[in-house]
Amino acid sequence: MLSNMSSFFVRTLREDPADAEVNSHKLLVRAGYIRRVAPGVYSWLPLGLRVLRQVEQVVREEMNAAGAQEVLFPGLLPREPYEATNRWNEYGPNLFRLADRRGNDYLLAPTHEEMFTLLVKDLYSSYKDLPLTLYQIQTKYRDEARPRAGLIRGREFVMKDAYSFDLTDEGLDESYNAQRRAYQRIFARLGLEVVICAATSGAMGGSRSEEFLHPCEIGEDTFVRSAGGYAANAEAVTTVAPPEQDYSQIPAAHVHKTPGAKTIADLVDLANRDFPRSDRPWEAADTLKHVMVTLVHPDGRREVVGIALPGDREVDLKRVEAAFAPAEVEVSTPEDLAKHPELVAGYIGPQVLGPQSPARAGQPDDAEELAGVRYFLDPRVVTGTAWIAGANEADLHVVNLVKGRDFEADGVIEAAEIKPGDQAPDGSGPLEIARGIEVGHIFQLGRKYAKALGLTVLDENGKSQVVTMGSYGIGVSRVMAALAEQNCDEQGLKWPLSLAPFQVHVLATGKGEEIFETAQNLAKDLAKDFEVLYDDRLKVSAGVKFADSELLGMPFVLVVGRGLKDGKVELRNRRTGEKEELPVEQAAEAVREAIAKAKEEN
Amino acid sequence: MLSNMSSFFVRTLREDPADAEVNSHKLLVRAGYIRRVAPGVYSWLPLGLRVLRQVEQVVREEMNAAGAQEVLFPGLLPREPYEATNRWNEYGPNLFRLADRRGNDYLLAPTHEEMFTLLVKDLYSSYKDLPLTLYQIQTKYRDEARPRAGLIRGREFVMKDAYSFDLTDEGLDESYNAQRRAYQRIFARLGLEVVICAATSGAMGGSRSEEFLHPCEIGEDTFVRSAGGYAANAEAVTTVAPPEQDYSQIPAAHVHKTPGAKTIADLVDLANRDFPRSDRPWEAADTLKHVMVTLVHPDGRREVVGIALPGDREVDLKRVEAAFAPAEVEVSTPEDLAKHPELVAGYIGPQVLGPQSPARAGQPDDAEELAGVRYFLDPRVVTGTAWIAGANEADLHVVNLVKGRDFEADGVIEAAEIKPGDQAPDGSGPLEIARGIEVGHIFQLGRKYAKALGLTVLDENGKSQVVTMGSYGIGVSRVMAALAEQNCDEQGLKWPLSLAPFQVHVLATGKGEEIFETAQNLAKDLAKDFEVLYDDRLKVSAGVKFADSELLGMPFVLVVGRGLKDGKVELRNRRTGEKEELPVEQAAEAVREAIAKAKEEN
Repeated sequence: MLSNMSSFFVRTLREDPADAEVNSHKLLVRAGYIRRVAPGVYSWLPLGLRVLRQVEQVVREEMNAAGAQEVLFPGLLPREPYEATNRWNEYGPNLFRLADRRGNDYLLAPTHEEMFTLLVKDLYSSYKDLPLTLYQIQTKYRDEARPRAGLIRGREFVMKDAYSFDLTDEGLDESYNAQRRAYQRIFARLGLEVVICAATSGAMGGSRSEEFLHPCEIGEDTFVRSAGGYAANAEAVTTVAPPEQDYSQIPAAHVHKTPGAKTIADLVDLANRDFPRSDRPWEAADTLKHVMVTLVHPDGRREVVGIALPGDREVDLKRVEAAFAPAEVEVSTPEDLAKHPELVAGYIGPQVLGPQSPARAGQPDDAEELAGVRYFLDPRVVTGTAWIAGANEADLHVVNLVKGRDFEADGVIEAAEIKPGDQAPDGSGPLEIARGIEVGHIFQLGRKYAKALGLTVLDENGKSQVVTMGSYGIGVSRVMAALAEQNCDEQGLKWPLSLAPFQVHVLATGKGEEIFETAQNLAKDLAKDFEVLYDDRLKVSAGVKFADSELLGMPFVLVVGRGLKDGKVELRNRRTGEKEELPVEQAAEAVREAIAKAKEEN
Repeated sequence: MLSNMSSFFVRTLREDPADAEVNSHKLLVRAGYIRRVAPGVYSWLPLGLRVLRQVEQVVREEMNAAGAQEVLFPGLLPREPYEATNRWNEYGPNLFRLADRRGNDYLLAPTHEEMFTLLVKDLYSSYKDLPLTLYQIQTKYRDEARPRAGLIRGREFVMKDAYSFDLTDEGLDESYNAQRRAYQRIFARLGLEVVICAATSGAMGGSRSEEFLHPCEIGEDTFVRSAGGYAANAEAVTTVAPPEQDYSQIPAAHVHKTPGAKTIADLVDLANRDFPRSDRPWEAADTLKHVMVTLVHPDGRREVVGIALPGDREVDLKRVEAAFAPAEVEVSTPEDLAKHPELVAGYIGPQVLGPQSPARAGQPDDAEELAGVRYFLDPRVVTGTAWIAGANEADLHVVNLVKGRDFEADGVIEAAEIKPGDQAPDGSGPLEIARGIEVGHIFQLGRKYAKALGLTVLDENGKSQVVTMGSYGIGVSRVMAALAEQNCDEQGLKWPLSLAPFQVHVLATGKGEEIFETAQNLAKDLAKDFEVLYDDRLKVSAGVKFADSELLGMPFVLVVGRGLKDGKVELRNRRTGEKEELPVEQAAEAVREAIAKAKEEN
């Protein structure tokens, strides 16, 4: 098919849009692929729609090949099913809610777990009907607090969501792995680099979960990876705990005056001066840092808890939040802390927290609600380790406070920020920290939704069994943005052959009928086999045409210009930057060969 | 591609859904093509989605062939552009409105005139950029008061909407005609019978407009047509007025007592008895019926107006409403009428209405607002016609009241119901009245939207010109329902080859491994060339399989059953009902030939 630039619906912009910070956003707008309608809401212009449809088609083919069946749900959904799973409330302000003319409540679907569960409940009743995986490619809505970066975090976006239904946990594993393999194939075909990261399930509930992240500086997600192949979302990394230690030789705990020690560095200096130990000097990692956070439980209750971690570590609130989900986590406010006068800012130590706190004294071990402030330890604080900690009084610290001898806690928590060089939990080496764009997420939901909505089937013995489910999403429009991030330079986009809106861009640069006639004939010829965009604009300079072709980013650019007087045209490869002069009569064949070669390499 | 019934996501229902009144709704639900989620909101199951996509593809190909370019707008739109054109208010309760987390107003798009206008304004600036036609295939939302008939009147539905942009009226005509021809090709390719009806533009504004109606008993639209090719929406039919008449011989108007004449029939009987005329008896068509209606103007103002029409005609409120758009029309309430004590129910006549009313006396002809009750005449009430009308007092009528001699009016209005046998306005013969489903609607919008939103371009002389627009819609999901209505019988659906979810349905009926093995081999063989559904269910009776295959409606059904012991299988044509016994070894070839033949015939 041939399209002429003079009538094709595209206009390039010289200026970046005012609200654009990242390349994909800038370039997709400037090149006329998308257009902003409202914050986080975009229109797809002809060029953008062509790429989107091509991405969708790759996703569709691999879903079908994995045995998933395509359906299509509405975007406008009734409240009741989301009420049954409590997501009507849990989604909070992220959910677009509305009422119809009769006053019935509706929502714009952020994701469709409830509806797929009800559909399968409606149609299926026997274990023989399972396994089943359904999917759709559909428009989703989320009222993001901070829509940003164009298609990367939008409020209306295109998503592929799939749902699997199985009788057994083993079945779920199989369905999950089939989707996981399909995702690998999809991103391989799209040529999009992804890292599969172990993830937490967050508000979705369920057990196993992995994110597909495209490594990218401008990504919103932090993840870690080791050279040995480990990768995880920062929230999901587990710490390698040291073995328990023999503390029989450690002297009894002793309180020291530590006036003026405002920082951990001060404290370490003072310790090494005033009460040095024989085997090695005190380090920041020997001090026990206490951080108080407030959990805001779903019922609104605010609970202050204490977290202790080695003094060379910072707390990562996202990791804390993942550990305490569905509660939200805040830094404790002065009002929260005022309710616990035993906590002396800067000098908090284990003695006023958790099991050893006076508040807990006399409370039975199996009490329903633990008295006092609950107390959680970083995994490195194992039995036998000795610490310098606050003594719960200004200018006093305790030295040689031993876990298992002098204090205990209510639990272990992954609260510490990961640092480059930390060891991967699977022993595959030191971790590096990177950023990425989340392009896919797969979840083992388990039986949460099926239970809430009553999806059961009869098993071989005629007994009713709750079905177990998986949920698998790809942000299709976000994938397109990630592809644009990966396939661009300062001049513009540079699409891979299989995703480009047009495979060939023919430019007529220069003046004279012969140039335009030759260019048009070549464009027509190539249009028999390919999608061809022909820049036929009469009063546009060669410079503008070159700049536009680099901005638009078609993989092959055929230039018919001044060289024509010597019988030459130029073939440019936008991806590699290579340029080749060709006799005009060989040009069409050369383009065909170049495309055939590029297809093979893919 | 081969799909097995045992794992394909479909379950047929024996019972019609409780809310279903029409065949397409009943069958599409029972056959597992669609599923209700909320009133007027449906999910597409795999079978339904396949048909929908095929209909979409026909629409897309013909739009592209007509030079329209595809884009995709969001469903969630900001209020402001719809405020600028006043449609935010005019749509009334049909519009789904919502607010985001910041309290900004949004709507779910019912149609996108405003957004396309703004997009073109954003990108284009010169007459050289025009003409342009853009389209999308997109999800629309309307909060219908009475969603009904499944996909026929839904609240979320799929629509193709196109918009043309031209500098001149002639250009608009060309763009309009190009879309009109594309629509004819689309419905021809779909095999859907349509009648192109002249229509009124209603709330859309603009001049020329035509509806594409699929003639169908269960349709919601009434239209008329003549054997000579005229067709129009009932609202758009114009009446053939008789020529003006010479009234020099008609006696002066005279008031008669008409006690007890409660109905027009009574009045006619009484007239023929008490004051007969010499040339021919009085008939109902000689009486002048007066109907008072209340216009509710967009600003909420209620205005009572009088309409006079021959006594053998009824008022059609839809036609009145079309004439007074954008005002809404109601039958006048007692409260409305109480404000006009001169109107004596049952005896209203021209003397208290319009130009001759006492209220108007002394008012200059060019008064801004006409005093009294405005008065409108049916086109048949031409100058020189003589009438019996009420005398504005109980039990009194005036006889020989002559239009042009004894009374005038403020205008002519198409208010009377069309009757079978009425003459087509183009002289193409008597009209018949029929019902249809509106599947397409094309409008010449003119400059209304471009003016409201400031879409101008510079013309050849550098002068700013307002662009003129057209708007062209096809209800894609409704088209699918109309196709189902047209392609079904009591047993179920019967899709044409090009729209069927599967071209071939292979049934293994009966017991024995050989039957299933043979059926599966045939299915696999045919699946190399076609979409094949294979009913491989083991414990399902032949009767159920036959019934399911008729309900699902694939055009070719290949039955492998008891005949196999004699080496025979049966090929059924679901569309024609033909059955043919074939030697098993010729079966695949016979199916291929039958499909090739059906393709040719299409």
